[in-house]
Amino acid sequence: MKRREFLKNAGIGVAGGALAAPAAAAQTQPQLRWRMASSFPKSLDTLFGTAEQIAGRVSRLTEGRFEIRVFAAGEIVPPLQVMDAVQNGTVECGQTASYYYIGKNPALAFDTALPFGMNARQQNAWMYHGGGLQLMRDLFKQYNIVNFPAGNTGTQMAGWYRREIKSVADLKGLKMRIAGLAGQILEKLGVVPQQIGGPDIYPALERGTIDAAEWVGPYDDEKLGFHKVAKYYYYPGWWEGSAMLSIYVNAKSWTSLPKPYQEALEVACAEANVNMTARYDAHNTQALRKLVSAGAQVRPFPRPVMEACYNVAQELYSQLSAKSADFKKIYGAWSRFREDQYFWFRVAENTFDNFVYSAKRPAAGGRK
Amino acid sequence: MKRREFLKNAGIGVAGGALAAPAAAAQTQPQLRWRMASSFPKSLDTLFGTAEQIAGRVSRLTEGRFEIRVFAAGEIVPPLQVMDAVQNGTVECGQTASYYYIGKNPALAFDTALPFGMNARQQNAWMYHGGGLQLMRDLFKQYNIVNFPAGNTGTQMAGWYRREIKSVADLKGLKMRIAGLAGQILEKLGVVPQQIGGPDIYPALERGTIDAAEWVGPYDDEKLGFHKVAKYYYYPGWWEGSAMLSIYVNAKSWTSLPKPYQEALEVACAEANVNMTARYDAHNTQALRKLVSAGAQVRPFPRPVMEACYNVAQELYSQLSAKSADFKKIYGAWSRFREDQYFWFRVAENTFDNFVYSAKRPAAGGRK
Repeated sequence: MKRREFLKNAGIGVAGGALAAPAAAAQTQPQLRWRMASSFPKSLDTLFGTAEQIAGRVSRLTEGRFEIRVFAAGEIVPPLQVMDAVQNGTVECGQTASYYYIGKNPALAFDTALPFGMNARQQNAWMYHGGGLQLMRDLFKQYNIVNFPAGNTGTQMAGWYRREIKSVADLKGLKMRIAGLAGQILEKLGVVPQQIGGPDIYPALERGTIDAAEWVGPYDDEKLGFHKVAKYYYYPGWWEGSAMLSIYVNAKSWTSLPKPYQEALEVACAEANVNMTARYDAHNTQALRKLVSAGAQVRPFPRPVMEACYNVAQELYSQLSAKSADFKKIYGAWSRFREDQYFWFRVAENTFDNFVYSAKRPAAGGRK
Repeated sequence: MKRREFLKNAGIGVAGGALAAPAAAAQTQPQLRWRMASSFPKSLDTLFGTAEQIAGRVSRLTEGRFEIRVFAAGEIVPPLQVMDAVQNGTVECGQTASYYYIGKNPALAFDTALPFGMNARQQNAWMYHGGGLQLMRDLFKQYNIVNFPAGNTGTQMAGWYRREIKSVADLKGLKMRIAGLAGQILEKLGVVPQQIGGPDIYPALERGTIDAAEWVGPYDDEKLGFHKVAKYYYYPGWWEGSAMLSIYVNAKSWTSLPKPYQEALEVACAEANVNMTARYDAHNTQALRKLVSAGAQVRPFPRPVMEACYNVAQELYSQLSAKSADFKKIYGAWSRFREDQYFWFRVAENTFDNFVYSAKRPAAGGRK
């Protein structure tokens, strides 16, 4: 704020009856400049844009004294090396999705999404009031990282398919761009998972090098034009009932941060958590309408396909629990909490949703 | 922060490689003390507690320079006079639910909930990225108030009934503690709505002065013990698919606030918005389990009852649009956005939810 503006505001404050006096001790916090490495390109404007919003809020909260500059994927480190960069102190902080790093530790998946896991509300309940954040913080200590929930895509789509999936048999031999635990599950059902970076997916689908590819949801997918080369658009992305994004802070950098700056970064991440989901929810509709107009065939996975994947997921969780003590510990707490959430959500919340989505609209109700 | 702590932290900041220097101009923001009048008693600890969390976050963000003291319902003004108190400048700010004031203007309901409206995610999408907040801000200008979304209960329960509701006919003559638009809708179906304050509901139900009463959801309801005097617990509370809470700030007080304090209050409200819902979601489960153990009979409204209420709601919205230009304007934008949200949510989100809630749990999956 400019000094003149400040004086004006402070003046009106007094006139308005508020008690205004200079603070007892004028503490001047230091000027800090941090770098944040993002795993996302600028084109994913909701994901990358959230990192910029966090930086902007922190700057305004601290009157420009704590500045965080956000770098897109590849500008400082490649997208999947953000965790290493924060751990090593190459950057003070990063924006990423923890499930990218399940090769280091499968328990990191709980910070983002597990197949047939929780929706965005349930994930927030677990993190903030179900012990989840504490469990994840304990895990991240191994990596010199303090993690913050900072956004969620909501339930993703299951991606684009050049041919229909009518049965479990149709998964056999399907070359699909999919990674992580979902890739491991689908592999057991005959899918051949492929690792392909964002920009290479379209040409691979077009040439038929792959038969299917998952990305995010309508808003991000529409921009890449997948519907032109693979017309079947399946849902739901059961591997991401929600996908939480995280801000990582190097533990030493965090400890060194003056308390008000810690407060600013923490609260900006919480704001980002509600804001990103709202942004996706608001924008996905128009993108989905556009895709449908352009010929996308929107299809639900048949229930037997969902059930086959669900059963393989449970086997995978048993195997991971046997292999990893970290996974086992968090899985126990997480799956109990998830069952509790399902118990409650299926009562009021889900019944309300199901009714309003299926209620017959009156003639005057506008578009249907 | 204590000065010693500050010096220590700042020192480590330098050691950590961050650029640390005194800010160019040491701006000392004024010491401010505000009062916040809440519509809620301290016993509703999730609602009232959120106001305290907002005040705490603001204080910590401003190093104790901007202090907001929160007063429970009745301490400064009665619960339903918070809007007047903020409008008149009796207090600088308040915590309330805007649908308490539909007597002043029916369009205020859009700030909280309308029967058969939006769930919490959809309400956030509308407010933050669907033009809703701007529409509400324009409306609140009439009342010298700047409003902030600051929490949501999620879908509420439909309340406690001394007898079963098996058909629309069972609503006839039902004396029910219910207010607002839901009361007006139910009245057209034969219910006799009653206005009764929180503490008087239990004795009224016990004596049979009323046959039914709605409150919030399991977490808040359980504390009041309604299950002991009215065993049927119905869902969903179709009049509150979600109920958003608001922070009101007197427009002059807001303008007088130094920019960083505005930032602090705004971001603390956004954090409260995600945090309150997470807290209710996490705590409702255990409360519901307790209620079921204590003999509560949890029942969904029969679909014909839901449909009758839905149809009356649409008539009511037509009538309100004819009577109130404010209502008509916002209803048009709101209902289009709601249809768009339903269009998208029923695809990935609702299909995911419905599948996981109904999937057969493996034997090892724990409690069901």
